[in-house]
Amino acid sequence: MRDDPDFGGYVAEIENVLRMVSIIIRKRGRDILENFNVTPPQLNALNFLRHGILTMGELGQKMYLACSTATDLIDRMERNGLIQRERDTSDRRVIRLKMTVKGNEVIDEVLNARKRYLAGVLAKVASEDRKALVDNLHKIYELMKAEEV
Amino acid sequence: MRDDPDFGGYVAEIENVLRMVSIIIRKRGRDILENFNVTPPQLNALNFLRHGILTMGELGQKMYLACSTATDLIDRMERNGLIQRERDTSDRRVIRLKMTVKGNEVIDEVLNARKRYLAGVLAKVASEDRKALVDNLHKIYELMKAEEV
Repeated sequence: MRDDPDFGGYVAEIENVLRMVSIIIRKRGRDILENFNVTPPQLNALNFLRHGILTMGELGQKMYLACSTATDLIDRMERNGLIQRERDTSDRRVIRLKMTVKGNEVIDEVLNARKRYLAGVLAKVASEDRKALVDNLHKIYELMKAEEV
Repeated sequence: MRDDPDFGGYVAEIENVLRMVSIIIRKRGRDILENFNVTPPQLNALNFLRHGILTMGELGQKMYLACSTATDLIDRMERNGLIQRERDTSDRRVIRLKMTVKGNEVIDEVLNARKRYLAGVLAKVASEDRKALVDNLHKIYELMKAEEV
């Protein structure tokens, strides 16, 4: 269905506007981090730990961090009560990282701040446009998911 | 215009689907980084340097990195030919970072990879839906920008 002459223009425009919109939403979510004394890299780490316990090595790999940098980050997060270190009982060299209740709260607060911000914006959009936006975003998301497999 | 009963549901859905879509697009753009031997934190740094020359301190602050971590990152990037260090002529303690031609190429390639991927997805969407998507995304982007000021 590359039927309209300006297909390339649409693609560039959608890429650009999606990027700008998601930068603004993330920024608004991050504003709340200051209240918790949490930095964006720490939020990033929490996001990975949300889906389950990881070893230090696994987290470092996912975040593309050198070993010393990962240790430094984890030290601060543990002092801040966001995560817990646990030594593996069968292999004492392995350290597992677990999110605490406070860590979970931080993630929830950030997502809620994003939603509050977005609610304020979407309240100014006509309900039929809102519906069209959800429907079309879902369409492209479904196409993307289908390609991922 | 919070006129539909399921306003909260729409907000949560849009926040979620926007987040998922932008995660997938960024991931697809990143796949190309391996060809250049560039890590995501390095891409992040390049993104900040794209808008102008920064000092080491400024870049570290923008990326929320400890001084030693920032130095480490910059060392690798300089060895990889992505950036250049320059000492300030009036204050030798200040180091300015400048993106090289190669650094610029990496950014361009990543954005192009995102667009190629998105073009493949959008080609499968009816042109009227594509148009509605661009229009509605622009509407919310304009509302967001108006609030930013």
